[in-house]
Amino acid sequence: MPRKIIIDTDPGQDDAVAILLALASPELEVVGITCVAGNVPLPLTHINARKVCELAGRVDVPVYAGCDAPLARKLVTAEHVHGKTGLDGVDLPAPDMPLADGHAVDFLIETLRREPAGTVTLVPIGPLTNIATAMQRAPDIIPRIQQIVLMGGAYFEVGNITPTAEFNIYVDPEAAKIVFAAGVDLVVMPLDVTHKALVTAPRVAAFRALPGTVGPAVASWTDFFERFDKEKYGSSGAPLHDPCTIAYLIAPDLFTGRHINVEIETGSELTLGMTVADWWRVSGRAANALFIGDVDADGFFALLTDRLSRL
Amino acid sequence: MPRKIIIDTDPGQDDAVAILLALASPELEVVGITCVAGNVPLPLTHINARKVCELAGRVDVPVYAGCDAPLARKLVTAEHVHGKTGLDGVDLPAPDMPLADGHAVDFLIETLRREPAGTVTLVPIGPLTNIATAMQRAPDIIPRIQQIVLMGGAYFEVGNITPTAEFNIYVDPEAAKIVFAAGVDLVVMPLDVTHKALVTAPRVAAFRALPGTVGPAVASWTDFFERFDKEKYGSSGAPLHDPCTIAYLIAPDLFTGRHINVEIETGSELTLGMTVADWWRVSGRAANALFIGDVDADGFFALLTDRLSRL
Amino acid sequence: MPRKIIIDTDPGQDDAVAILLALASPELEVVGITCVAGNVPLPLTHINARKVCELAGRVDVPVYAGCDAPLARKLVTAEHVHGKTGLDGVDLPAPDMPLADGHAVDFLIETLRREPAGTVTLVPIGPLTNIATAMQRAPDIIPRIQQIVLMGGAYFEVGNITPTAEFNIYVDPEAAKIVFAAGVDLVVMPLDVTHKALVTAPRVAAFRALPGTVGPAVASWTDFFERFDKEKYGSSGAPLHDPCTIAYLIAPDLFTGRHINVEIETGSELTLGMTVADWWRVSGRAANALFIGDVDADGFFALLTDRLSRL
Amino acid sequence: MPRKIIIDTDPGQDDAVAILLALASPELEVVGITCVAGNVPLPLTHINARKVCELAGRVDVPVYAGCDAPLARKLVTAEHVHGKTGLDGVDLPAPDMPLADGHAVDFLIETLRREPAGTVTLVPIGPLTNIATAMQRAPDIIPRIQQIVLMGGAYFEVGNITPTAEFNIYVDPEAAKIVFAAGVDLVVMPLDVTHKALVTAPRVAAFRALPGTVGPAVASWTDFFERFDKEKYGSSGAPLHDPCTIAYLIAPDLFTGRHINVEIETGSELTLGMTVADWWRVSGRAANALFIGDVDADGFFALLTDRLSRL
Repeated sequence: MPRKIIIDTDPGQDDAVAILLALASPELEVVGITCVAGNVPLPLTHINARKVCELAGRVDVPVYAGCDAPLARKLVTAEHVHGKTGLDGVDLPAPDMPLADGHAVDFLIETLRREPAGTVTLVPIGPLTNIATAMQRAPDIIPRIQQIVLMGGAYFEVGNITPTAEFNIYVDPEAAKIVFAAGVDLVVMPLDVTHKALVTAPRVAAFRALPGTVGPAVASWTDFFERFDKEKYGSSGAPLHDPCTIAYLIAPDLFTGRHINVEIETGSELTLGMTVADWWRVSGRAANALFIGDVDADGFFALLTDRLSRL
Repeated sequence: MPRKIIIDTDPGQDDAVAILLALASPELEVVGITCVAGNVPLPLTHINARKVCELAGRVDVPVYAGCDAPLARKLVTAEHVHGKTGLDGVDLPAPDMPLADGHAVDFLIETLRREPAGTVTLVPIGPLTNIATAMQRAPDIIPRIQQIVLMGGAYFEVGNITPTAEFNIYVDPEAAKIVFAAGVDLVVMPLDVTHKALVTAPRVAAFRALPGTVGPAVASWTDFFERFDKEKYGSSGAPLHDPCTIAYLIAPDLFTGRHINVEIETGSELTLGMTVADWWRVSGRAANALFIGDVDADGFFALLTDRLSRL
Repeated sequence: MPRKIIIDTDPGQDDAVAILLALASPELEVVGITCVAGNVPLPLTHINARKVCELAGRVDVPVYAGCDAPLARKLVTAEHVHGKTGLDGVDLPAPDMPLADGHAVDFLIETLRREPAGTVTLVPIGPLTNIATAMQRAPDIIPRIQQIVLMGGAYFEVGNITPTAEFNIYVDPEAAKIVFAAGVDLVVMPLDVTHKALVTAPRVAAFRALPGTVGPAVASWTDFFERFDKEKYGSSGAPLHDPCTIAYLIAPDLFTGRHINVEIETGSELTLGMTVADWWRVSGRAANALFIGDVDADGFFALLTDRLSRL
Repeated sequence: MPRKIIIDTDPGQDDAVAILLALASPELEVVGITCVAGNVPLPLTHINARKVCELAGRVDVPVYAGCDAPLARKLVTAEHVHGKTGLDGVDLPAPDMPLADGHAVDFLIETLRREPAGTVTLVPIGPLTNIATAMQRAPDIIPRIQQIVLMGGAYFEVGNITPTAEFNIYVDPEAAKIVFAAGVDLVVMPLDVTHKALVTAPRVAAFRALPGTVGPAVASWTDFFERFDKEKYGSSGAPLHDPCTIAYLIAPDLFTGRHINVEIETGSELTLGMTVADWWRVSGRAANALFIGDVDADGFFALLTDRLSRL
């Protein structure tokens, strides 16, 4: 029986690839996609999510609109990385499939209450506003969550939006604090690992060579997306941040990490949104997350390319 | 034409008196009551609000349930002040009138969008979670708000829930920060003024002597409520915090204050939720609120008693 | 046998009056005066301290120069209150008596080590830099201190240099944190009490009518000093902050206060240097200070005038 | 003419090697060694400094005792790394050479005032308490400093004493904030570079093979010292943190770094003492330091071994 997941997302090119990977994988059942303001404002995120579902031929997956601003701060977006639409690089038609009725937070709460406890996994790959709002509004759902596998944070890679903060956590640090303190089974894909999953030229070529429209679209997205990292870091390709979460659900052995304490900085402007990961276990604080540090990048791209070929 | 107001509340005995005062005043049209977690958990607040409407014979006023937890923190309640139900002191029957359909935040947004700009005033007398959530979700409503007249904060009176924080602001300081920074016409009734509106024995007697059921109920509530302040502060009666907001709308000349800068402390646990009011204007920061410091207490109680007699 | 005290000071007109009151009181033996940067820069403070000793005819009292900057911040001074010299209002000659050899902090440490434990009281009436530095450098002196009676902080009076901070604590909050956490017998004279010790016109007249030069000098200083408070607060005279400490040592029954917890805010710019006094005992934190809240102002001024008449 | 330097230190095995390297290098004139509490309490640091001078046969170098506690915090030490004496690993005799008269801070101030402006370089390799105290006490010395080359901080290596802080900065973050904000020509050797200067087995062997007593002593110290890093990080040898500063003065071409902004976190307990280095230049804040990121480790050890052989 496939594992039920809800993808919480703010697409974003790498979000799109994560969604495609999930939709292409028989091990997973995407019971819904919940959208949140992040890389781009909310109205663009749910258009993008539906474009991606249509590209995959999966108009049956409900897409919900969720929170359009962080819990306690003004929204910061990342058009400098993702382009004005959030999905720059490929020109997809406006979606025909409608937005699902209801608020994403209500969908999260209702689904977790309806399904048997411990059978629904959340995969947040944007700011954690929707997830934290659901937890605040309905604390009874927290012990019903099977696992949360999220993309966010950084330790040795330190930060991308500020010197010390990764974008997803920085945008809504109060939400992140709620999620990291909730006591759930939590797996974190930080920049430490996603910067090891770079789409190098041969890997883009492999995407582009796939039959059908999905592979070339992914190739074009990563082409667009990588210009940012190449310019800033001088790296050999774009990091595919978000698909790491889905790959972990399918093939956890590709990843290694440490069960450690991770705290979120919300009290200082200078280090706001930092994920203080106690990698060396010097703090004496109890572990609350599996913080992933490494990936078999070749295995990851082999998996990704294979799955995309099925769409 | 009466002035349209929405009362945002977490009743609370003094909230109840504020609602009664508003319903009794022809100068005001209560277009709705939105409830928020605060003095007691959310489910009790909207039961209490409906009990009060029924006591006033005003089952036509829609009562909405809103946010049941602060934006970014665990809920703190105040049963030590208000009793287990929030309305201890008078035994009112369970309400017959139903809760209005829809979320309080949606009602706030829709009402402000529907009514002509500058014609709806918000009267928050609990934590500011509903108001801040509406502002975050729909920033277009902010310039449409006529005025916000809220109960919360303290300067010379410093604090009641901690040494430096008043309860309403302390419960959701991030929400307060959003509201105080929104740039609206903001009137603040802090403990500085509400501690000058004490229900002394003669004032309680005046309530109790009123014909009908409302006056005696208000007398019993304040009897219950005052035990807290008498024990803690040794004061001669309970402060009627929340009705000050409604009285200000009817008779602003009863009050005096200063247009000053007021900032909300969210960055330090020690002083969390403090309303840093620049009463002496030493900070150089721009004014963002009319911070009320004094009240003609006799005039206030004369007004209140007169109005309650009409219900 | 008189009680041995060291006055740690940054004169300042009210510091000068405190020194005079101490020198005029047989109950006290001023074993030294240690100067610290505060109201004015260090070089002016020790000139002023010596001027005051000479005015009192007490060139035998050693005056030491101490720290010329706060522990961890840039010095903030208060010429807007005290005038350019710190002692504006009376034109005293440059002092003939020399500065004592050695650093004030060394004098504090050596005196506390030399004298029997529990026989030397510190009276800090400026920023706490010297005292904290001595405690950091020689923790063995802490249990040897008989008592610290300091002027600083505010609770209901909240602040004078910022909306939430009193000057002495604000200038060096890290030093204050060290002193308040040291575990010594600590008496605090905050603005709450000093603002009740106002030099009204009849009280100034009484000073001026004293024979000799000291009374008229004190009258002229308070005349100068009061312009600040009259303009800002509209009060009827200047508060004589610092002499309250000395008066407490001579006549503690003039004062009332509470044994409570007092914490120093050092973590937030907004509330930096606030003395968070748990006056209502709501925090659950252990008491660490006697925080004075009231004074018999007539008794205080009678004492002060009588003593000044002896010089 | 050799370049004049003052080494400010809390030895520490790697401090000892830095001192030896400086004393062995004709390009440098060590005009004094100032000691500060850090790795071990102050009394041990100046004993250790004198032991090292005697080992090098340089009893002519004055060694001063400085601050024995951080500006505003309790001292944290690192015996878990350096052993109880701070120089565990070699048994050196108690020093015969005396401590120089006077306080280290006075020596710093007097030397900088006496020597021509721009001719004295400071090399702090412990907590920055002495340097910050000198700057606070005598701001006129700041523009007279030729350069500060310090060991401290971390960015990609993040922290060693906490998840986010390096020891030297963590021990006295307020002092670090003062030094980093002073506007001096500042070169920083963070863990990022010192963790690339590991004393591998062949490098230890090269030390041990040197004629005389110095090489074997250095070999034994690094043997002792490396057990900590081997256990914690699984690295192949101990990082020689402090000698990097001296090597930079002799052979700057061995090192590469970036001119960037570096801020010190002092406002949050969670990230206290972090050096927030804007390596990717995303903050828009002005550069205030040359933050070293890489070293030619072979070149560094060749230099070090060669110089030690001369002693």
